[in-house]
Amino acid sequence: MNICAYSYEAYLQRVKSFHGHLAPGVIIGGFMVDLAMKHLPEGQFFDAVCETPVCLPDAVQILTPCTVGNGWLSIVNFGKFAVTLYEKYNGKGVRVYLDAEKLNTWPEIRDWYLKKKKKHEQNSDVLLAQIKEAGHGLLSAQHVQVEPEKVRRKKLGPVGVCPVCGEAYPSNDGDKCCNCQGETPYRNVIAVNAK
Amino acid sequence: MNICAYSYEAYLQRVKSFHGHLAPGVIIGGFMVDLAMKHLPEGQFFDAVCETPVCLPDAVQILTPCTVGNGWLSIVNFGKFAVTLYEKYNGKGVRVYLDAEKLNTWPEIRDWYLKKKKKHEQNSDVLLAQIKEAGHGLLSAQHVQVEPEKVRRKKLGPVGVCPVCGEAYPSNDGDKCCNCQGETPYRNVIAVNAK
Repeated sequence: MNICAYSYEAYLQRVKSFHGHLAPGVIIGGFMVDLAMKHLPEGQFFDAVCETPVCLPDAVQILTPCTVGNGWLSIVNFGKFAVTLYEKYNGKGVRVYLDAEKLNTWPEIRDWYLKKKKKHEQNSDVLLAQIKEAGHGLLSAQHVQVEPEKVRRKKLGPVGVCPVCGEAYPSNDGDKCCNCQGETPYRNVIAVNAK
Repeated sequence: MNICAYSYEAYLQRVKSFHGHLAPGVIIGGFMVDLAMKHLPEGQFFDAVCETPVCLPDAVQILTPCTVGNGWLSIVNFGKFAVTLYEKYNGKGVRVYLDAEKLNTWPEIRDWYLKKKKKHEQNSDVLLAQIKEAGHGLLSAQHVQVEPEKVRRKKLGPVGVCPVCGEAYPSNDGDKCCNCQGETPYRNVIAVNAK
């Protein structure tokens, strides 16, 4: 049983090192990416869409060339555990989702996924064992046509210098940057002498 | 010259392998994360904020335990090249930004960053050489107090099963999932027989 180019155990090691711990969502995500890739023509350039920012983007970033920073991975915040890989020019792709109808065979996964148990009531060993046993068995796949302009990040546009803070910002945002417009998540800003 | 635990050359290798190519933004981002960490107490648990989804999140994901999927990296889309690392419980942190005032010493970086040259007019070798030479010299740092609730992703809340597509979704989104409410980026959805 492989997950893309990795053995199952080697993939778990990558999950630990990148994601920090053996999160069930990243392990299932590995099977999802693997299944999607099996349905794509080999050697194709593809982009990815995750329908949740939780866990799944890390499976994509571990297993494919698509990352958040290079823009080939888009995240739409629909709260759904689904990933789509699609050919970046024609939009043809494969969407894989965790299929609620298939969950009854794996009660520990069902209770975790549908939040039927609180975290301290879950049995992590049983959960991980069922995930390994289930593999692709939890998943369903669809052929889809992606409308890339609905998922890709917008171009930054022209750059200006904010008259308040003196930093560069996208001039399309207005006459000052978002921070200085009051959206800042920071208080008590004090300059440090650069080391 | 190191970037966190990596030599400069080893960091460039990691950038190539994770991000796909030697993007100037990910290299500068490495110096930014390095500078921020030098101002944080050692051994502290910290979260990260990037003020742009472009390039910078990959520097954070290469160099720190914070990823998009584990939720320790938040992205606010202000279009600003700035990163903040902050102590996750008390919110105290360090924000590092590319300082527009310091750019004049490095004309190729200035023209790239402020988009004064089109891509085909840029000299990539000169740009990368100036980035290496400049190192922290392009950057300024600030002590900040982060309001974590303004940057952290919201809890998913209770999970329901969408009556239209049959997939799990956050019931707080309404009586059906976002895809089925019409926000879907997909057309021509056709089930595939799972392999």
